Amino acid sequence: MEDYTSRGEFALIDFIRRCAASAEAVQAGIGDDCAVLSAPTGPVVVTTDMIVEGVHFRKEDPLRQVGWKAACVSFSDVAAMGLSPSALVCAAALPDDFSMEQAEEIFLGLNQACAEFVVGMIGGDTTSSRGPLSLCTTVLGYASAEFKPILRSGAQVGDTVLVTGSLGGSILGKHLTFVPRVDEALVLNSGFDVHAMIDISDGLAADLNHILEESKAGAIIEADRIPIADAAHELSKRTGKTALQHALTDGEDFELLFTMAPDEAERLMRGQNFREPVSAVGRITESGLFIEQAGQRRPLKPEGYEHFKGMGGKKK
Amino acid sequence: MEDYTSRGEFALIDFIRRCAASAEAVQAGIGDDCAVLSAPTGPVVVTTDMIVEGVHFRKEDPLRQVGWKAACVSFSDVAAMGLSPSALVCAAALPDDFSMEQAEEIFLGLNQACAEFVVGMIGGDTTSSRGPLSLCTTVLGYASAEFKPILRSGAQVGDTVLVTGSLGGSILGKHLTFVPRVDEALVLNSGFDVHAMIDISDGLAADLNHILEESKAGAIIEADRIPIADAAHELSKRTGKTALQHALTDGEDFELLFTMAPDEAERLMRGQNFREPVSAVGRITESGLFIEQAGQRRPLKPEGYEHFKGMGGKKK
Repeated sequence: MEDYTSRGEFALIDFIRRCAASAEAVQAGIGDDCAVLSAPTGPVVVTTDMIVEGVHFRKEDPLRQVGWKAACVSFSDVAAMGLSPSALVCAAALPDDFSMEQAEEIFLGLNQACAEFVVGMIGGDTTSSRGPLSLCTTVLGYASAEFKPILRSGAQVGDTVLVTGSLGGSILGKHLTFVPRVDEALVLNSGFDVHAMIDISDGLAADLNHILEESKAGAIIEADRIPIADAAHELSKRTGKTALQHALTDGEDFELLFTMAPDEAERLMRGQNFREPVSAVGRITESGLFIEQAGQRRPLKPEGYEHFKGMGGKKK
Repeated sequence: MEDYTSRGEFALIDFIRRCAASAEAVQAGIGDDCAVLSAPTGPVVVTTDMIVEGVHFRKEDPLRQVGWKAACVSFSDVAAMGLSPSALVCAAALPDDFSMEQAEEIFLGLNQACAEFVVGMIGGDTTSSRGPLSLCTTVLGYASAEFKPILRSGAQVGDTVLVTGSLGGSILGKHLTFVPRVDEALVLNSGFDVHAMIDISDGLAADLNHILEESKAGAIIEADRIPIADAAHELSKRTGKTALQHALTDGEDFELLFTMAPDEAERLMRGQNFREPVSAVGRITESGLFIEQAGQRRPLKPEGYEHFKGMGGKKK
């Protein structure tokens, strides 16, 4: 029997995509950051994410931050479509020795995120679990009839590849406290012609590869232009990997990775007033994924943070 | 520190309701079967549910049925608002020794349910878990601008209390294979003036009590009119509880419990052609919850299937 872990989650997503009931209402479906639905009354964007203790956070992490993360992971997916989140529902499986105070901390974190981004926390479900804490958030974004979602599939040869903020080492803290790039996404989608966008949850190399697969294109990244986070340098001292490697392959930065025509990119870079600078890190090509450093070009493997890797799954 | 388990999930829902960001867009929010949102473009109904191995199903249950259940639990919530489900997203935490075949079985079950009720399966998220399998489904229902949700809060003194199908003993199998009463809900909301409705997930007594709390009313149930499922009789032989007790307090029947004026109820009962008969089981009163049997009236405790009960939570 084929082992689930040997193919990873993307194989399963492929399977789901194939067997999903064909819904005429779906403008963009499984495989992008969000599904975009044509409700009879207008477009609705929806995303769902599950975070699990031991995988996305540790038992000892502050529960308020865990609640914040649960909400913001989904907000980030909505932002990656070029929209702001409108409403959140959360289902929680709580360990059966949880105290009321612990449960409240989680919901205070969720609530803090909802307040920060003016999202309605509209419902939820709680259940007990003998296993680890897990939180499932589903977030909706309401769009106007004119809304055009920014998909992964729109990258064009010659496009500049850009990224918000800095990358790598999120495990040292940012993965729990990051600010989803909702404001930046709105500016990008209202003021610029963005061709393709994704949020960096699996890592720069892996998420860029998602864009390339959907756009049937390639890319060249310039190593010296990648904005490396202080945390990546810090982590590098402990792991033996370079800070650049961390910036390329660490997951859960939740920055926006996007492509636009070079002149649009220049206009953005000239006028940018985001909380953190945007960096142009490469360009879209016909095929392949490469990284250039000191005049040398080498293939860049789209490795990143993939669940089920190194989780010790048994072969069947 | 107050123990979470000592107050049960309803205390937490109360807390969430209090701290939820006030969203003007929410017509009916936390505490009903679904939230009803006024999207700028029209009403959207949304519900989210988490089912967890060891709580809502057993490790040895057929995974296709588990997938079916995950979808249908949420379909049932949408039906309880008087609407049909439109779209589903599912997030799954899969044990890390899961095979690809096992994962596929779950999604085939989800897909089967979506096909049966013409729901678009539009997206999802999978993650690994060292704990039990858990599935979180979020389901949307699109409504026309004229849609009036059937809330828990609309019961009126003098109303007849009705229920679809038969009750009790769902643990013997129905909890995995039930047919959510979507068709019945549509007939009820289009052809009748239903005052209040809920689906029976916690048990007849407990779910009726939810209606009473939201409607600020009471009820009298007639024991001899309760439709007792064969499974309740079967289970009664093993547990020492009466079949009636099972019908009153077993959870996960996923039948519809609703109230309407007596003449509407008579019209429904005369013309009914549902898959399974509808039964009139009692009436709404000013206050209290009672059951009558053989001319005797006694208080009925709103006990039912509440998560965290009997789960061995440690007191802090």
